[in-house]
Amino acid sequence: MDNSFVLKGDICYSETPTRLACQPNSYLICENGVARGVFPELPEEYRGLPLRDCSGKLIVPGLVDLHMHAPQYAFRGLGMDLELLDWLNTQTFPEESRYADTAYAERAYQALLADLVAGPNTRACIFSTLHLPATKILMDRLEASGLVTMVGKVNMDRNSPENLCEKSAADSLADTRRWLEDSRSYSRTTPILTPRFIPSCTDDLMRGLADLQKETGLPVQSHLSENPGEITWVQELCPDSSCYGDAYARFDLFGGDVPTIMAHCTWSGPEETELMRDRGVYVAHCPQSNTNLSSGIAPVRTFLNEGVRVGLGSDVAGGCHASIFRAMADAVQMSKMRWRLVDDADKALTVEETFFLGTRGGGAFFGQVGSFEDGFEFDAVVIDDAPLLPPYSVEMPDRLARVVYLSDDRHVAAKFVRGKQVK
Amino acid sequence: MDNSFVLKGDICYSETPTRLACQPNSYLICENGVARGVFPELPEEYRGLPLRDCSGKLIVPGLVDLHMHAPQYAFRGLGMDLELLDWLNTQTFPEESRYADTAYAERAYQALLADLVAGPNTRACIFSTLHLPATKILMDRLEASGLVTMVGKVNMDRNSPENLCEKSAADSLADTRRWLEDSRSYSRTTPILTPRFIPSCTDDLMRGLADLQKETGLPVQSHLSENPGEITWVQELCPDSSCYGDAYARFDLFGGDVPTIMAHCTWSGPEETELMRDRGVYVAHCPQSNTNLSSGIAPVRTFLNEGVRVGLGSDVAGGCHASIFRAMADAVQMSKMRWRLVDDADKALTVEETFFLGTRGGGAFFGQVGSFEDGFEFDAVVIDDAPLLPPYSVEMPDRLARVVYLSDDRHVAAKFVRGKQVK
Repeated sequence: MDNSFVLKGDICYSETPTRLACQPNSYLICENGVARGVFPELPEEYRGLPLRDCSGKLIVPGLVDLHMHAPQYAFRGLGMDLELLDWLNTQTFPEESRYADTAYAERAYQALLADLVAGPNTRACIFSTLHLPATKILMDRLEASGLVTMVGKVNMDRNSPENLCEKSAADSLADTRRWLEDSRSYSRTTPILTPRFIPSCTDDLMRGLADLQKETGLPVQSHLSENPGEITWVQELCPDSSCYGDAYARFDLFGGDVPTIMAHCTWSGPEETELMRDRGVYVAHCPQSNTNLSSGIAPVRTFLNEGVRVGLGSDVAGGCHASIFRAMADAVQMSKMRWRLVDDADKALTVEETFFLGTRGGGAFFGQVGSFEDGFEFDAVVIDDAPLLPPYSVEMPDRLARVVYLSDDRHVAAKFVRGKQVK
Repeated sequence: MDNSFVLKGDICYSETPTRLACQPNSYLICENGVARGVFPELPEEYRGLPLRDCSGKLIVPGLVDLHMHAPQYAFRGLGMDLELLDWLNTQTFPEESRYADTAYAERAYQALLADLVAGPNTRACIFSTLHLPATKILMDRLEASGLVTMVGKVNMDRNSPENLCEKSAADSLADTRRWLEDSRSYSRTTPILTPRFIPSCTDDLMRGLADLQKETGLPVQSHLSENPGEITWVQELCPDSSCYGDAYARFDLFGGDVPTIMAHCTWSGPEETELMRDRGVYVAHCPQSNTNLSSGIAPVRTFLNEGVRVGLGSDVAGGCHASIFRAMADAVQMSKMRWRLVDDADKALTVEETFFLGTRGGGAFFGQVGSFEDGFEFDAVVIDDAPLLPPYSVEMPDRLARVVYLSDDRHVAAKFVRGKQVK
């Protein structure tokens, strides 16, 4: 079968946040798109499968981007001398309003898809815009790419410019239902409910989305506690909430039975952290965005210590780079600054830990994803790291570190998602 | 003549830290390796010169790396879960000791040079190791590359491992003189005196280097106030000094008549800042290294406000990336974290400001370097930024920002140093 085969190479994946499994010159089995483990010798039962020899190359699980905005890809690197709320109003909303034009959307999403396919990510949770036709273009292209993604038509019916604001909660909900109808044909591209963030959504809209969530069982993604000004505003909008996370929880859109990703959580305090832990909310840690928009440095070490689920996000275009290898390096670097400048009780993250976050940590939101252990969906990236090797011999953890800090899409030799080769 | 010609394209350079000159579709004149300005129409007197048409491409001054360690290039990205002093002892010194082996040096420096030629930097101030043969290999290769660099054989005669420690100040100074004798044949590669840092150099060695400096007039490069543990140690080693900078000043190796670069200055306080300003010391700001080694965030805004001279450094391999475009982006991002987390009186740096620092700011250490104004040495990078353009039309400052955040060596279409094409 097309999606049953064996890869041979230097295989590396996370067992736990601090334990990296490294199996040089070994065999990785893909059976019907599912991993069957890594073996130093090819087991008898798999000898009939086609073998792809990637000897000398690193093979790692596909990377998972838990948070990115597809329409913002076009303006990466621009207009970032602003904080979140001003940046939204002067840069992001005008850019997103362009996606009313389907020709523009076609052009812009083509460039995004080329980048996503070339890089090391295999999965992503993606914000679209509020526009149905542009969201369909995005989902069509993602489906054709072979990547596995969750995509959200954005809901926003207040505090937004006239040309990027749904007329009412009822309109927003009706559009959302229409979009869900239109999204049934995909096999790799699934909808995720996407209230932009509390300031953009009326109480009626939030209640309607909660009803829709209960009806459909769909997952939810939004933003949480990214920026101090935003947090103050949410407190004004929801005076009864005890924290920003509680404002979502009061609408039943914050974990529990609802699979939920909250992006950023830069300023989540003890109460919000506990709430996320208890309700199984995933934090999408987006370190580069948090520097570019002057947001701060999220307390990831605390989240891990407290048992909160954490993955990594590029947050394109708060972040400029789609690759989650870059997010791993940024996460290590920013955790060091947090240790040095904010709280020296928060030990810095290691490369191994951020590799876990960018594979298995975020992968868990998609199910059994982010590892090569028996039963995991088969997402794999083959990396030709020969150009990155130092002039002496190094072990696999050091090779991985070099890839995290130094690689780009030129080093991605091949990429598989659910056993299907996409690059 | 070979190094008299005209480039046509979209030309961009810093006039001041906050004023970017942007001249689309214009003519940049190089006469005998010297810039003669930028013109919207080609002046009559230059019509006989060969014209290279780079229409549609960005042309910017060559980037200047004020601080990097050539022997550390080989281990970029490795072993960075340590602070400075431990990192030196367990990672850096063992790596540098390999350069006693000239075959290793040949191999390692070949990879470094390939990277330096491919990227956007045209000038650099470089630490070698203490080894004369390896330093000669490095200087030979740099000279052949066409880049213009200052290279320092490192002086270190204490607090270093036995296989990377000069036996005495006299030995170190004798080797330094031999190296200076051997370095006379280069035209683009000039020596710079390089006491590693106070902890590595005995008082006798510092005094000897100061004498040598007076005798030769050579410039000096070293490290300053990078890490809190280092600063405490220097205070113990030099109990009479009022600050780390004063410890260099007491040996007459801190600006004044001595052209001096001090790398990092992460923790320089008011007294040290004033001393640098008054003595014209150049700060090599190395933002990525300061994250990787958990050092902190240098007060660059304060340096600029106080009139201190500042350039950018990659600090390979405290930093992983040689490109000074990356240092510009890192400098912006870290200044935002400093504003947010350390001192909100220190306004974040802009892309325009860090572009100034990475061209004209550091270039001034080399003389009239880092601009296209009449009389500046002609260092230019031609950037094919077409793959980086958004799907709508943007002005040149935005194109430059995209290049700073997103470009890599694939976008460097051509590079000229002192009028000589090197890529």
